[in-house]
Parts: sequence; C-alpha cells; structure tokens
Amino acid sequence: MEKNRIEAFSDGVIAVAITLLVLEIKVPQVSLAQGEDALIQALLDNAPKFAAYFTSFIVVAVWWVAHHQLFYTLRTTNRTLLWVNTLFLMWVCLIPFPTALIGDYPASHTAAFLYGAVATCTAASFSWMRWYVSCKAKLLKADLPEDAVRRTIRKSLLSPTLHFMGMLIAVLAPDIALAIYAAIAVLFIFPSTLDRHIAEHADKTSQK
Amino acid sequence: MEKNRIEAFSDGVIAVAITLLVLEIKVPQVSLAQGEDALIQALLDNAPKFAAYFTSFIVVAVWWVAHHQLFYTLRTTNRTLLWVNTLFLMWVCLIPFPTALIGDYPASHTAAFLYGAVATCTAASFSWMRWYVSCKAKLLKADLPEDAVRRTIRKSLLSPTLHFMGMLIAVLAPDIALAIYAAIAVLFIFPSTLDRHIAEHADKTSQK
Amino acid sequence: MEKNRIEAFSDGVIAVAITLLVLEIKVPQVSLAQGEDALIQALLDNAPKFAAYFTSFIVVAVWWVAHHQLFYTLRTTNRTLLWVNTLFLMWVCLIPFPTALIGDYPASHTAAFLYGAVATCTAASFSWMRWYVSCKAKLLKADLPEDAVRRTIRKSLLSPTLHFMGMLIAVLAPDIALAIYAAIAVLFIFPSTLDRHIAEHADKTSQK
Amino acid sequence: MEKNRIEAFSDGVIAVAITLLVLEIKVPQVSLAQGEDALIQALLDNAPKFAAYFTSFIVVAVWWVAHHQLFYTLRTTNRTLLWVNTLFLMWVCLIPFPTALIGDYPASHTAAFLYGAVATCTAASFSWMRWYVSCKAKLLKADLPEDAVRRTIRKSLLSPTLHFMGMLIAVLAPDIALAIYAAIAVLFIFPSTLDRHIAEHADKTSQK
Repeated sequence: MEKNRIEAFSDGVIAVAITLLVLEIKVPQVSLAQGEDALIQALLDNAPKFAAYFTSFIVVAVWWVAHHQLFYTLRTTNRTLLWVNTLFLMWVCLIPFPTALIGDYPASHTAAFLYGAVATCTAASFSWMRWYVSCKAKLLKADLPEDAVRRTIRKSLLSPTLHFMGMLIAVLAPDIALAIYAAIAVLFIFPSTLDRHIAEHADKTSQK
Repeated sequence: MEKNRIEAFSDGVIAVAITLLVLEIKVPQVSLAQGEDALIQALLDNAPKFAAYFTSFIVVAVWWVAHHQLFYTLRTTNRTLLWVNTLFLMWVCLIPFPTALIGDYPASHTAAFLYGAVATCTAASFSWMRWYVSCKAKLLKADLPEDAVRRTIRKSLLSPTLHFMGMLIAVLAPDIALAIYAAIAVLFIFPSTLDRHIAEHADKTSQK
Repeated sequence: MEKNRIEAFSDGVIAVAITLLVLEIKVPQVSLAQGEDALIQALLDNAPKFAAYFTSFIVVAVWWVAHHQLFYTLRTTNRTLLWVNTLFLMWVCLIPFPTALIGDYPASHTAAFLYGAVATCTAASFSWMRWYVSCKAKLLKADLPEDAVRRTIRKSLLSPTLHFMGMLIAVLAPDIALAIYAAIAVLFIFPSTLDRHIAEHADKTSQK
Repeated sequence: MEKNRIEAFSDGVIAVAITLLVLEIKVPQVSLAQGEDALIQALLDNAPKFAAYFTSFIVVAVWWVAHHQLFYTLRTTNRTLLWVNTLFLMWVCLIPFPTALIGDYPASHTAAFLYGAVATCTAASFSWMRWYVSCKAKLLKADLPEDAVRRTIRKSLLSPTLHFMGMLIAVLAPDIALAIYAAIAVLFIFPSTLDRHIAEHADKTSQK
C-alpha cells in the first residue's frame, strides 16, 4: 500500500510536469492590421519552442516509463527510497525550465549546457535509486534473475554518462548537444534486451 | 495493473491539460477611475477567449471519454501501446496553445488553421491507437463482437478526416472552420449506435 | 469501476483548479533601494488577492466535498451523467478567473457580478446533476430514505438561488455581494441535518 | 474508502503545488548579440530562485511524507477532519508564493518574514490536525502505543514553534531565518526515534 501511494504521488507529479511544458509556448502578440504574415512569421519563429516541447515531452515520458518499471520490480519500500525518489522528482520537475530556455535561445551554448546539466542530474538520481533498491537495500522482488539485475544497473549508468557528455559537447557545439539529447530519448523508447527479459519473466510468473 | 497505471497517468495528464485552459483567460488591466465601462468593455472583448475555453474544455473532455472507452475494451497492454498513448497525450496537452491563439486572434485564418492541425494530429494518433489495439496487436477483450469493432475503427477515422477538412476550410473561412470544430465536438458527445451496442454488450456480460 | 474513474478524473481536475488559485497572486515588482517600505506596501495592497485566494479555496473545497458525497450515494453511472459532470467541472475550473478579477478589482461591481454568475452556473449545474441522478435516471443506491433524498434536492437549490441573489446585489453593492458569497461557502462547510442523516444511515448499513 | 479519497485528493493537490514551484523560475530576456555573457550573468542572478525552488520542493515533500504517515495511523475519518485537512492544504498550496517572493528579493526581511508566516501556519494547522485525530476525535488505529502517540504530538509542536522563531528572527536577520527554514526541512527528512518506533510496530502488526 505504501508502495502504491509513492507511485501515485510520483505519477501525479510527473503528469503535472509534462503538462506544464505547453505553458512555455506563449501566444505571440502581433498586429493583424497588415494581414496575417506577421502572425505566421511569429509562429515560425516559435519553431524551436515547439521542437523543445516535443523533445521534453518524450524525455519526461521516458522517465515516467522507467520509474514505472523500477517500481514494478520492487518488493517493498523504505524511508530512504522515499527521499531518493523525491530527489529524482525534484530534477524531473525542473525540466520545464531548461526546455523553455532552449525554446527562447535555441542556438545558445548556455541553454544547451544547462539542459544537459539538469538531464544529467535527473539521470544520476535515477541511477542512484536503481542502485539503492538493487544493491544497497535489497528491495527487489526475490524472483528476478540476478544477472539481469546487474546488467540493468550497468545500463542505467549509460543515461547520466551520455547526458554528461552531451553537456560537455554543448560548450563547443550546442546543436550537436541537442541532437544527442533527442537521440538518447529515442534510444530509451526502444526496450533493451534486458527490459524484454524482465518483462517476459514477469509475464511467466503471473501466468503460473 | 499495468493497464490501471497507464489509465491513471493519462487521466492525470488530461485533467491537468483541461484545467490549464483557464490560465489563457487573463485579467484585463484597465483603470476604474472613469467608472467600470472600460472593465466591462475589456471583458466583452474577451468573449472569444471564453468561447475558446468552453469549446476546448468539451473537446478535451470528449478525448477523455474516448480514451476511457478504448481502455475499457482492452484485455492487456504492451510497450508499443504505451508509446502510441504517449504520442496521443502529447497532442492533447498541446491543445491549450491553439486555444489561446484563437482566443487572441478569433478572426485569423492562421489560428483556425493551427487549431485544426493540432486537432487532426490528436485525432489521427487516437485512430492509430484504436487500429493498433484492434487490428495490429489484438489487445482487445475476446468477447467483443468483431463487426462492432470493425465499424468502430471506420467511425474512428471520421474525426481526423473532419478535422483535416476543417483545417483546409480555415484557409478560406476561419469562422466556418471554428463552427465545424465545435460541431465535431458536439457530435462526439452523443453516443453512436455502435457505442451503445458495445455498452449494452459489456452490460450484459457483467450481469452474467 | 466506471464510477471510480469518473471520481478519480473529477478529483484530479478539482485538485488542479484549487491549486492554480495561488498563481493569481503575483510577486510585486518594486525597488528595495529605498528600504522595504515599498515592498510591504505592495504586499498590503495585495490583501484582496489573498482574501480572494482563501475564499475561493474554501469554495472549491466545498464543491469537492459535495461532489464526493453525491457520488458516494450513486449505485451506478451512465453517459448522460458523465456529460452533466463535465459541465459542472467546466464551471469549477473557471472559478480561478473571477477570483483573479476580484483580487485585481476588489471594489468593482463588474467583478463581483461575474463571480456571482460563475458561482450560480456552478451551483445550478450541480443541482441539475443531483436532480438527474435522484429523480430522472434513478442512479441512487436503493437503501437511501426517499424523504431524505427529496429534502436534499430541495436544499440543493439553495446554493444557485443564493448565488443568483448575490449576483443581483453585486450590481448595487459589491462588498455585500462578496460577503454573501463567503457566507454561503461557510454555510456549506457545516453539515445539514440531512447530510448527517444520510451519513448515519450509510454508517449503520456498513456496520451490518 | 472515504479515507482513500481524502488521501488521493490531498496527494493530487500537493503534487500540483510542488510542481508549480518551477513556474516561478522565469526565463531571463536578454540579447545574445554581444555573446552569451549577458545570459550567463542573468542565470547566475537567478541563483536565489533555484535555491528557493530546491528548498521549497523539500519543504512540500516533507509535508507530503508527514501527511502520508498521519493518514496511515488513522482508523477512520470524519467531516471535521476533512475541513482541518482542507485548511492544511490551503497553506501548503500557498507556499509557491513566498517561495517566489524570496527568489525575487533574497535579502529582504519582508520576504523571509512572510515565508516564515506561511510555514508557521502550515505547521500549526498540521499540529492541530494531529492533535484532533489523536486526542479530540480518537480516530487513530487501536493498536498504536499511547506513549508514542503522546510524544509524537509533542514533537509535532516543534515545527510551528521553530518556524515561528525563524519568522521573528527574519525581522533582524533574513539570511539566518532562511538558514533556519532549510535546517528545519532537513531535520524532518530524518526519521525521529518515534517515527521509527511506529514504523516498526506497524511492520510487526502487518507480519502477524
């Protein structure tokens, strides 16, 4: 029951964070006296904001799915996990800010760097949470294969590492950094072999 | 359980999106030194924003009901559905933006066109989801009559088609396009014969 | 289950609406170069906004409790109820706007009138919903005493009537109208004899 | 069931309030014509806003955990608790405002004072709720040790007392007051001996 309430609260927080992203796209204020060209131009100028919206929507959704899967594998929770989870949510909820920053300054090194920094912190806190429940506090269900768990933790470190590299690249080439961030998101949409292994295992267990 | 959590997250996202609509109606800033006529006038000038609020509220509610019904017919879910559903939510959450745009530029071709574009994408992603669960991945409950399922899919294509036509009409006559969007929303409030068929069938099954 | 999902969605919408109220209190922009008197003064000038926040928070909470109790008495739901409920939520979600208007124009007839108008529509749609489930569609649990149900419907008409009167009074005396709105909210915090009757009855039934 | 719905609504409200905190961090509007120094400087100037975001996120999360634990110990609820809980939520939802105020005026006595005032009211309403369910209405589960309950109430008074002292100190030294607020939040992250006692007891009971 405890676990359910943490999940419900996390779902609520992530649902609000993902929906707030749209608030960063402001309606342009132009005059229509000379026809609609000014409005069309203003909306086209907003293209980076739309791109930022779509990318961050997928990024936050990826985190929701990852969170979902992690909590599915949990046997129980404890107070430390509650706070590690809060730390993770604190970074997820911050994502709308660097998203808006990139929307306003799409060619800026600073904006791309900050986005990478927040993404790295989000990913690092999630990796910490995964390590904590798997290795430190042993909160996982008993029937998960140890091998798959170990490989999942290793894979879990990929996200903060890649984001950190993206962040460094942002100093030199912000557009490449942005492409890397989008690529990481797309990468995590596809399930890894390990994800599939765990899913199948859980499937079999539930069918018994 | 998996299904429940996707439903709960989707409900949360849609609930936030529908409530954010009110934020687009801003308090007018006028001086009351000369009496309240300026305030009354400013509020009357806001009439398109109120109309846009009411219309989009019903539009999003229609999507919530449709989502509700679709997930009711599901036997199970899978990872692909999770992401098709995320795509659908991405478009639903964007609706407050063209709504605000129409509220600010009620006579604009561009605004009516963009509203239609977002509505078409929302409807197309939903049709894709319905097709995916019905035909591609076969995730529906076993006891649904095949005939009703087939006709529901066909009917499901009505919404993106009509919205697409509304979008094209917006180029010539934005006011007619807006009337079409509102009419589509009202159309989907009333249950179709097929909806009623499925509802009755589900009713009978649950009574057995 | 259907009933649970409508309840959950309504709870979500009302929870977001009640929390958005705080966004209407903006941070005043003053210079601290001459000491903090300007900031203190600006915050004191915001007193009507704080009063509007507290009042509307209670108003929305009263609606949440009323919604909660109504759905508790339901045996089942149907598609019409779904849409009457949506209509009710549409008015609840609008409440932040007249709240912000009163916060900005606390002495205005127009603002007090509009608040009353939205409150009247909210209350009228709720009365309609209560009448619909009790008399029209007979969706109530079988074990509720008919007498109590009839008196609850009659009492339910009190809220739109009082708000409508408050709205009319706003044309002459906005401050009296605001006092009436606050008084109605406080009135509905206290349970009526009928509320207590239903609660006791439900209590006894659950103990059997 | 009643208890579940109050919990769900409270979770929803707190989840929205915690996520709205990010909206107070606005994207700075500068020109990049002279390079990115202006943007970097503007973001560094926003440092107090980020500090306020992180602190208030933890503060609200602490309240969520406390609320969670209080409702866990409840046997049942009643209408008075419903309204005391609403009062508590009314203060929690207000927290984004003084947070934004401190973010804009980090060195201001007034901002630090107001933050302390809202925090004191939040904490006092929570203490009232704890006292009400423990001593006044006896809504707690029967198997909780009386001694632990009594000590928890006493400890519960610590939070409003400390926040009230912080508020007074804010008049003289706002920076010390802010440090005190942050320290109180960190203090409540760690479970007290009593928290652990209750947790263990509940653990044993559930294992029987």
